[in-house]
Amino acid sequence: MILQKHDILNLDRQYRVHLINHLSGVKGAHLIGTRSADGISNLAIFNSVCHVGANPASMGFLLRPLTVERNTYSNIMENGAFTINHISLQYIRDAHQSSAKFPKDVSEFDHLNFTEEYFSDFYAPFVKESHISIGLTFEEELKIALNGTIFMVGQIDFIKVKDEFLEETGHLSFGPQNSIGVSGLDTYYELNRIARESYAKAPK
Amino acid sequence: MILQKHDILNLDRQYRVHLINHLSGVKGAHLIGTRSADGISNLAIFNSVCHVGANPASMGFLLRPLTVERNTYSNIMENGAFTINHISLQYIRDAHQSSAKFPKDVSEFDHLNFTEEYFSDFYAPFVKESHISIGLTFEEELKIALNGTIFMVGQIDFIKVKDEFLEETGHLSFGPQNSIGVSGLDTYYELNRIARESYAKAPK
Repeated sequence: MILQKHDILNLDRQYRVHLINHLSGVKGAHLIGTRSADGISNLAIFNSVCHVGANPASMGFLLRPLTVERNTYSNIMENGAFTINHISLQYIRDAHQSSAKFPKDVSEFDHLNFTEEYFSDFYAPFVKESHISIGLTFEEELKIALNGTIFMVGQIDFIKVKDEFLEETGHLSFGPQNSIGVSGLDTYYELNRIARESYAKAPK
Repeated sequence: MILQKHDILNLDRQYRVHLINHLSGVKGAHLIGTRSADGISNLAIFNSVCHVGANPASMGFLLRPLTVERNTYSNIMENGAFTINHISLQYIRDAHQSSAKFPKDVSEFDHLNFTEEYFSDFYAPFVKESHISIGLTFEEELKIALNGTIFMVGQIDFIKVKDEFLEETGHLSFGPQNSIGVSGLDTYYELNRIARESYAKAPK
């Protein structure tokens, strides 16, 4: 099937949202942990975490437009700290449930099977059940003019990795026991490694 | 293992690059197709394609800093058109090979097992072998001050989807026959659907 712009505009609204949300395919699903100035911790699932750079070590993620209150955004703006936590297969349902609209004075940690954990003086909560977690300090935000979506960038301060997933080369081994994927906002995927390729060289 | 900022800075350079590149986990791997003003087509693999919005229908991806010539970037700037093409399992090696530095006057389509395909008057090439492809028109670029990485945004003009992967609801079914994942720049993953969750509601 080939759809052009006018076909897309004429699709049933819900059908179009599903289709467009799924076009980018499967991405990693992560829980982002933050904490308000009042000390209320927050946990929310995101599907847009990206590598930004190795030096300075940095990562980013997309945040929906600020047309409603976004605790993740306001907490990061209050104190600059956030964590990115991988999700293992057994926690899909709890992770998905973090997408519900919990009131701002309620911590998702009190309602889901996740435990908050703190390291050193880092302000944001890590998810104890995650085998791969990263603590970051907010660096910058970039606003997409088209629809107000925000790309948030942070520098990496902390890496928590269970030793068994860290290879001698620095590569991480992903699988159902430590990381899952998601397409759109609702469909979850298991990830199984199939190949590692060497650095590609152009033909002579 | 817990690494703090000074530990990360002291890691062996190559080890650090692998580790930081892998922290974001598995993301979809896509081939981005473009064509220069001279008509030379280009194909390159990316691991950072994201959903931006359903209305206007838009997607984005991260482009490494412009410290070396980036054909994908310069082609998009010349004529605004690019395609995002999913990769099926059998094409991993060819897709990976597109990351090699081909000369600007050489088309990757001439050296890899991919066929360029054009629709209507859309300037950028689609990958015939992809079962899910999107044609986009450049909308805006956002430059990350920290390291010069660029987030490119485009509006969706064309969707090419093989009917068997399009569900009645507008969801797409992903699997080895139409889409793969990648962690870092070298490790490829098979994606298998395990659950679809309904819209999450907060506790009363």
